[in-house]
Amino acid sequence: MKVVIIGASGYSGAELASLVVKHPQLTLAACYVSEQSLDKGKLLSDLYPEHVGLLDSPLLPLGESAYNDIESSADFVCLCTDHKVSVDLAPRFLKMGKKVFDLSGGYRLSSNEDYQTYYGFEHQHTELLKQAAYGLAEWNSDAIAKAQLVAVAGCYPTAALNALKPLQLAGLLAEQPVIINAVSGVTGAGRKASVGTHFCEVSLAPYGLFNHRHSPEIEQHLGHKVLFTPHLGNFPRGILETIYVQLKVDVTPEQVAQAYQVLADEPLIRLLGNKIPSIKGVAKQPFVDIAWQQQGSQLIVMAAIDNLLKGAAGQALQCINLAMGLPHSTGLKG
Amino acid sequence: MKVVIIGASGYSGAELASLVVKHPQLTLAACYVSEQSLDKGKLLSDLYPEHVGLLDSPLLPLGESAYNDIESSADFVCLCTDHKVSVDLAPRFLKMGKKVFDLSGGYRLSSNEDYQTYYGFEHQHTELLKQAAYGLAEWNSDAIAKAQLVAVAGCYPTAALNALKPLQLAGLLAEQPVIINAVSGVTGAGRKASVGTHFCEVSLAPYGLFNHRHSPEIEQHLGHKVLFTPHLGNFPRGILETIYVQLKVDVTPEQVAQAYQVLADEPLIRLLGNKIPSIKGVAKQPFVDIAWQQQGSQLIVMAAIDNLLKGAAGQALQCINLAMGLPHSTGLKG
Amino acid sequence: MKVVIIGASGYSGAELASLVVKHPQLTLAACYVSEQSLDKGKLLSDLYPEHVGLLDSPLLPLGESAYNDIESSADFVCLCTDHKVSVDLAPRFLKMGKKVFDLSGGYRLSSNEDYQTYYGFEHQHTELLKQAAYGLAEWNSDAIAKAQLVAVAGCYPTAALNALKPLQLAGLLAEQPVIINAVSGVTGAGRKASVGTHFCEVSLAPYGLFNHRHSPEIEQHLGHKVLFTPHLGNFPRGILETIYVQLKVDVTPEQVAQAYQVLADEPLIRLLGNKIPSIKGVAKQPFVDIAWQQQGSQLIVMAAIDNLLKGAAGQALQCINLAMGLPHSTGLKG
Amino acid sequence: MKVVIIGASGYSGAELASLVVKHPQLTLAACYVSEQSLDKGKLLSDLYPEHVGLLDSPLLPLGESAYNDIESSADFVCLCTDHKVSVDLAPRFLKMGKKVFDLSGGYRLSSNEDYQTYYGFEHQHTELLKQAAYGLAEWNSDAIAKAQLVAVAGCYPTAALNALKPLQLAGLLAEQPVIINAVSGVTGAGRKASVGTHFCEVSLAPYGLFNHRHSPEIEQHLGHKVLFTPHLGNFPRGILETIYVQLKVDVTPEQVAQAYQVLADEPLIRLLGNKIPSIKGVAKQPFVDIAWQQQGSQLIVMAAIDNLLKGAAGQALQCINLAMGLPHSTGLKG
Repeated sequence: MKVVIIGASGYSGAELASLVVKHPQLTLAACYVSEQSLDKGKLLSDLYPEHVGLLDSPLLPLGESAYNDIESSADFVCLCTDHKVSVDLAPRFLKMGKKVFDLSGGYRLSSNEDYQTYYGFEHQHTELLKQAAYGLAEWNSDAIAKAQLVAVAGCYPTAALNALKPLQLAGLLAEQPVIINAVSGVTGAGRKASVGTHFCEVSLAPYGLFNHRHSPEIEQHLGHKVLFTPHLGNFPRGILETIYVQLKVDVTPEQVAQAYQVLADEPLIRLLGNKIPSIKGVAKQPFVDIAWQQQGSQLIVMAAIDNLLKGAAGQALQCINLAMGLPHSTGLKG
Repeated sequence: MKVVIIGASGYSGAELASLVVKHPQLTLAACYVSEQSLDKGKLLSDLYPEHVGLLDSPLLPLGESAYNDIESSADFVCLCTDHKVSVDLAPRFLKMGKKVFDLSGGYRLSSNEDYQTYYGFEHQHTELLKQAAYGLAEWNSDAIAKAQLVAVAGCYPTAALNALKPLQLAGLLAEQPVIINAVSGVTGAGRKASVGTHFCEVSLAPYGLFNHRHSPEIEQHLGHKVLFTPHLGNFPRGILETIYVQLKVDVTPEQVAQAYQVLADEPLIRLLGNKIPSIKGVAKQPFVDIAWQQQGSQLIVMAAIDNLLKGAAGQALQCINLAMGLPHSTGLKG
Repeated sequence: MKVVIIGASGYSGAELASLVVKHPQLTLAACYVSEQSLDKGKLLSDLYPEHVGLLDSPLLPLGESAYNDIESSADFVCLCTDHKVSVDLAPRFLKMGKKVFDLSGGYRLSSNEDYQTYYGFEHQHTELLKQAAYGLAEWNSDAIAKAQLVAVAGCYPTAALNALKPLQLAGLLAEQPVIINAVSGVTGAGRKASVGTHFCEVSLAPYGLFNHRHSPEIEQHLGHKVLFTPHLGNFPRGILETIYVQLKVDVTPEQVAQAYQVLADEPLIRLLGNKIPSIKGVAKQPFVDIAWQQQGSQLIVMAAIDNLLKGAAGQALQCINLAMGLPHSTGLKG
Repeated sequence: MKVVIIGASGYSGAELASLVVKHPQLTLAACYVSEQSLDKGKLLSDLYPEHVGLLDSPLLPLGESAYNDIESSADFVCLCTDHKVSVDLAPRFLKMGKKVFDLSGGYRLSSNEDYQTYYGFEHQHTELLKQAAYGLAEWNSDAIAKAQLVAVAGCYPTAALNALKPLQLAGLLAEQPVIINAVSGVTGAGRKASVGTHFCEVSLAPYGLFNHRHSPEIEQHLGHKVLFTPHLGNFPRGILETIYVQLKVDVTPEQVAQAYQVLADEPLIRLLGNKIPSIKGVAKQPFVDIAWQQQGSQLIVMAAIDNLLKGAAGQALQCINLAMGLPHSTGLKG
């Protein structure tokens, strides 16, 4: 099957390109950037020296002729574009009959109102919000396999939802909001030059208190209220979430352990038992690492992912695998 | 006044040494290490190349003749030793009539039981636990000024207590435990070689869940229950705490702001208003940075310090200043 | 004496501002940025959170009224501006009778030809090139003290020249070019957002082979041919130079040691003997650290500085000290 | 074919283990550590959390029964042990008829004298020094394929020799020593806890001037004198070498480019043309990146590798591939 990547110059796009070229049953048909991009015409390996010899194809401008080429050649279109751009592009490719995998947040939430509040724009294709399958692979595989449009889950939500859905499913969560303290590596902020991502300016600090767009994404797909606080950390890749959960009264450690068994056979989930997850343990790895410790009805769940892999490109590929009827981990585990 | 530092080869001890030699009214009489230390006889500047020319004095072994020298020459004895060692050493120097500033946790908690539970040893001098003044300078200055023995506050507690005592004092805290998510730089783990602090092994990860010894220290000196979870982060210096506080119903932002006014005139506290603290903002700085944001009765307080300065050597010097009747910030702010 | 800083929002400018406000005999009169700067009106401490409470003055736009204010109030004008901007600004302030300290490269080389070749512009004020004193404080103190215009030495040249001038002065250098392998921290590339200084893009790599503008600066002020190769390293501050020197036949270690004695009494030079310099040893320190090892006629000299201190703001302040008849290290060593 | 790894707990050993388990034609039979090792009985994934699920086999003690197991089950024995230990172990496994791949320096040099001078021990098996094939895969593939004992090339020499042998082979090097300025990541110093590799102590600095053991290794296998100066850098993986070469008079850029064509078809060599290599470009990659720039008869060659891959485990696997008649890159390139 042939894959096209739009927005391939960014971190998620390039990561996805490198996964696709190494995948046994996929071909990377072409990589596009916007017509205005300064990276137009460069090789992906010009931007990513680690990929010299692997990704030496040029970044093509997404002009009209590009759409024709995509129509005639691609099976899967992956959007690694800004949220608003994804919203606009998806319908065009859907109309061509392509399967669209959107790595942005453009189709993850349930209503235009959410987009106004959390993304700051009017959603122009709300009719697609219900058709889009939420691309959290372990939890929505049937819908993902069938859908024309997959809204690949966000990075923070991927860690949070895999950590919390087992507890929610088992009915163990007390009523209080779950507190999610999350730290992301700097690739999460994108490759665009800014003072905030300058080597000498990055430093562990919180941001987006009370209003980050991943809050509603987590809440809508968990069905429980959360207080989510992201931080930027001084490392390139990875997300660590330390999650403070109030359990219902008298929930036992056995019940908690039992709840997580729902994930025991998932090839891209690692239940760590008494080991503690870390950024180092997941960087450049396709997994979600999950561990927990309990004291009375207080539970602390720890979840870690690579934000570019399980939090973006890896999960996109996992969704593509599902669409092709392949195992989740094809092309992701050595 | 003449200062002697015991345990000067570690990060806190060396930091304190560098502060003392630059202090306008203090003299660094001598620096000691244990008789078994491999650093015995080395210059402090051999271990800390940044201090070549400033700290070129040798690390003396703490043998019997050393005690005589200290008795005859020192005014203040600073213990930068392990907790158990501090417990044993303090009485000897107190008997000499010295003022003792203990940077370890040896005299911070209130009972032998706490030491058994959290430090794993029997406290041999429990009679001193009540005489020791808790060295949290902004909150206990009179006692610190008068005490023979000052138990300089721990690093995590310094940030947490300055962030929370204003709210507790104003009666704004709801009954639930306060959740403290804390991240410390690697100097917090000490200078001793270990795989855990190896350059290639350090990575953001939690540790000490539910049982870190700073939990009881915070609770005893705050008078409120907390759930404290430390993390090791991949940076050398600094602590960032993101603190999740449930306020009593109907507490207004004005009340919160008013509560923090108790710290407004403290020279080593910076109330950041709408700015967000970061590790970068406090590294190599003597301050506690505090900021907060509120949504309904949910308050998030952010506090940052340099663990070696305000979290150790800086606060020790602040306590020494109080003992000498000097302003808090002498020798700490340029 | 009153100091004005033009271009105060950059790393060198802000560093200089923090030094000036702490200097016992200087007042920071005002900080300026260009009228187009997005930082106009912000506080320096908005950009540099570590300086909250110290540098809370606004960045003023350098418009016409600013020139009047500077004329009536300032004694010393420090230019922390781009090379070309400095060339244009210096004459205006010189005409006001101010002493000008230019931290850019605008007045360091000897001819317009050099500026065309290495800086890519025509120098509009070549008449000033000869009047400008080269601000390498240890080697040109009399001229610096008297000059109206001081061209503060570049960062790489500061390390290289202090390491090599003793050998050149003693006549020990063989004819071959000296090879200088240099690595600089990322603040050396400035604070402006760019992909090259993105946290996730920085990585140890060489740049500017055979044509870096500090090559002619070193050669002109050393009087010897060099092959200078800079690298960008993944740390914020500091420069390390490993310098490969061919000595004349039969030069003895004693002669080399003797040659370096010319620097033995300089308060901001540390001759390290058998210790090895490192970035850690000089970061946030005002010194040049110099060490060397010899084998036959092959000498390896190692020199390290903080690029923002001895390599920029620290040396500028040292030059100001000379202009005021103060010791070199006033306001630089605690 | 079945592979056994001795010394699997260190960085090279664990890296090799992860390569072997993913290799299509190899089985990882067992991983050993010394009987005294504190890691005995732990899982490799306890030490390396990134390998949970991949390397969950226990580290076995290398006692007498282990030798029997190895004799009966292994085809290839990989020694990731200290130099001296490798020297002692190799003959025992050779006597069993195993093919031995030694990643230490124990069999790389040509004489006992070299071992006394550079390694500080008497070599007990000098008769094997001539039988051992030097495991620099691109340059010695026939000998490697046939040899019973392969002395896998050192990390620094791998970069240096691939960068310089093309010039030497083409007869372009002038008589002067080649100057190699090299910087290695901290995994190069091993996983053993030490103050020198403490997170807070690592900083760019040179070491081993004039006497590093990789100097004779480079010289013996290059056939030309070098001045090699290693540095430790503050990053986990990777080596960058900036190499200053004096060419014979009148050597043209075309001759240099032609010389490097000898490597043009090697799958694990990337000739970068006008791109500059960097640590980022090679970390976690199996390649040597090589680039060069010339001015007159002065050539600067830049070479970069991942010290754990092409500099150790990757090259060992490449040698194993050669022994099996497989392409160089099997199991190394996706």
